[in-house]
Amino acid sequence: MSDYRAFYPGRRVMITGGLGFIGSNLARHLVGLGADVLLVDSLIPDYGGNLFNIHGIESRVRVNVADVRQATTMNCLVRDREVIFNLAGQVSHIDSMRDPGTDLDINCRSQLTLLEACRRHNPGAKVVYASTRQIYGRPERLPVDETHLVRPTDINGINKAAGEQYHLVYNNVFGVRACSLRLTNVYGPRQLIRHNRQGFIGWFIRLALEGGEIEIFGDGSQLRDFVHVDDAADAFLRAGATDAVNGEALNVGGLEPIAHKDLVTLLIEVAGGGSMRLVPWPPEKKKIDIGSFFSDSTRFTTATGWRPAVSLRDGLSTTLEFYRAHRDQYIGGDEAPPVS
Amino acid sequence: MSDYRAFYPGRRVMITGGLGFIGSNLARHLVGLGADVLLVDSLIPDYGGNLFNIHGIESRVRVNVADVRQATTMNCLVRDREVIFNLAGQVSHIDSMRDPGTDLDINCRSQLTLLEACRRHNPGAKVVYASTRQIYGRPERLPVDETHLVRPTDINGINKAAGEQYHLVYNNVFGVRACSLRLTNVYGPRQLIRHNRQGFIGWFIRLALEGGEIEIFGDGSQLRDFVHVDDAADAFLRAGATDAVNGEALNVGGLEPIAHKDLVTLLIEVAGGGSMRLVPWPPEKKKIDIGSFFSDSTRFTTATGWRPAVSLRDGLSTTLEFYRAHRDQYIGGDEAPPVS
Repeated sequence: MSDYRAFYPGRRVMITGGLGFIGSNLARHLVGLGADVLLVDSLIPDYGGNLFNIHGIESRVRVNVADVRQATTMNCLVRDREVIFNLAGQVSHIDSMRDPGTDLDINCRSQLTLLEACRRHNPGAKVVYASTRQIYGRPERLPVDETHLVRPTDINGINKAAGEQYHLVYNNVFGVRACSLRLTNVYGPRQLIRHNRQGFIGWFIRLALEGGEIEIFGDGSQLRDFVHVDDAADAFLRAGATDAVNGEALNVGGLEPIAHKDLVTLLIEVAGGGSMRLVPWPPEKKKIDIGSFFSDSTRFTTATGWRPAVSLRDGLSTTLEFYRAHRDQYIGGDEAPPVS
Repeated sequence: MSDYRAFYPGRRVMITGGLGFIGSNLARHLVGLGADVLLVDSLIPDYGGNLFNIHGIESRVRVNVADVRQATTMNCLVRDREVIFNLAGQVSHIDSMRDPGTDLDINCRSQLTLLEACRRHNPGAKVVYASTRQIYGRPERLPVDETHLVRPTDINGINKAAGEQYHLVYNNVFGVRACSLRLTNVYGPRQLIRHNRQGFIGWFIRLALEGGEIEIFGDGSQLRDFVHVDDAADAFLRAGATDAVNGEALNVGGLEPIAHKDLVTLLIEVAGGGSMRLVPWPPEKKKIDIGSFFSDSTRFTTATGWRPAVSLRDGLSTTLEFYRAHRDQYIGGDEAPPVS
């Protein structure tokens, strides 16, 4: 896999959710490699798509605003694409519990729509799906590898798991080559930090930026692993360029786990601001708490040579720099109040 | 659990898919126990609902024709029900591969609709969901217990798995008590045998009835376990009457596995007609073949005392008698041709 970058010059690729956090960072890598990049994004408010995310590469990508649930549109857009990075999704587990039907539409129906579009109109495409460590639920052992049961604790996790499995079935039955990457907590520039409903790491970064108080539930000993978005993008590039992982769902995790309280301590140190407070678990949060989690990415590393390269300290530092430089694009405007 | 039957006299129960195969047999048991039985069924042609299935108990049940996807209807119907046996579903894996969107609607959206109806309008209800061994996919060891990975090989299996997981999340997070029974191959009177898209056992029975040739793929050594519908109904009764299995998804399997060729030999003997032919695996079927499968129901037996009681020979014999007596209600009319 040393030459996976050589696969991309001139390659016709598509990124669904291409104006979102991971999608736009991946787009930057692909533009750098000389790929022909089509970004599809619905730009639904609150979901993470942001036109500023492609600031500086606007002239080197094609943007098509569309909803992935819309079948005739997707039938058209997939036709000439060789690799499809399928990152569109509803990622808020809080939203999924309030409105499970919309989560189902976006995380299940839209995946079927895309895969049917490939099956019927471009069966030669390769599809790489962005799954999540969230589908494992509360781990029964650590680190979590792919032999661990998938037992999501929320609607979003269930629907993401179904979305992943569709890809594997289309690979195995219909020959639409596909694989799935189970990403752990991804962080970095261009993440949505406008509200706190899309995972804690972006919100912690925002609070540190603003010198705010970061609340941690319990004693802060719960472990997590983190992947910088550049490492995540590299994982997608490798998966897109090889047939060695077709039909597989593989973990893409961080270098080493860190306790919440140590993460926040590091973040405050790197940011030069913010504070930490331990608060008791709210009962309704405790019900869906998964305890400690970190993943074992050995299978993906073995298959593709991928390894995370960005240390947490460096990653947090450049992320904070990015938001400081572009604060107005990510904070402010019509903000929803934080959800407690 | 010796007194689980005493739970039902006067109990207000609802069965979704109540005019279908398992639903209508369960209704007969509940009527016998003196329960207040509401049957909800969409009567979508080809799906298994059949008004003749409640022949003889029509006056002792209430039938409400409705589509479980229809939220306002479900909000109304669940209100006074104490136990909901949730059996409505699209059960054809063949149909799911042709039209995955409809399978998603019926096996995912409708489950969310029912569970949301309970969450918002009847959070005290107990829900028992009919899941399937199909969600396990191709087993990596036998017998399959609940620690085995869920890796469906088709769209129907994926959506049934999601439907099951919704129930567990609503139990764990929203307090709507729910559990799921992973049924193995169920057979018996009142199964749809009008076409061959709902599993092989009903179709084999029909062919034997008509003196036809029963084709088995490969050498016929693949193992399966079978549960008579009366045993399946007893499993639902036990699960509905106890809180010991809330939040659990448990196997409900057969007495002992039998090879396809031995099953068909037994069926031909009991039926006094029909013949068997071994044919090579069609390549597109081989791709989704799961090899041998049989399940371990120890957990459910331990929790509820349930054990299958009907032998395969006796079960096939009474099933054949039933269809001989009521042939016109289950065969004929506007039949679709068999799917190959």
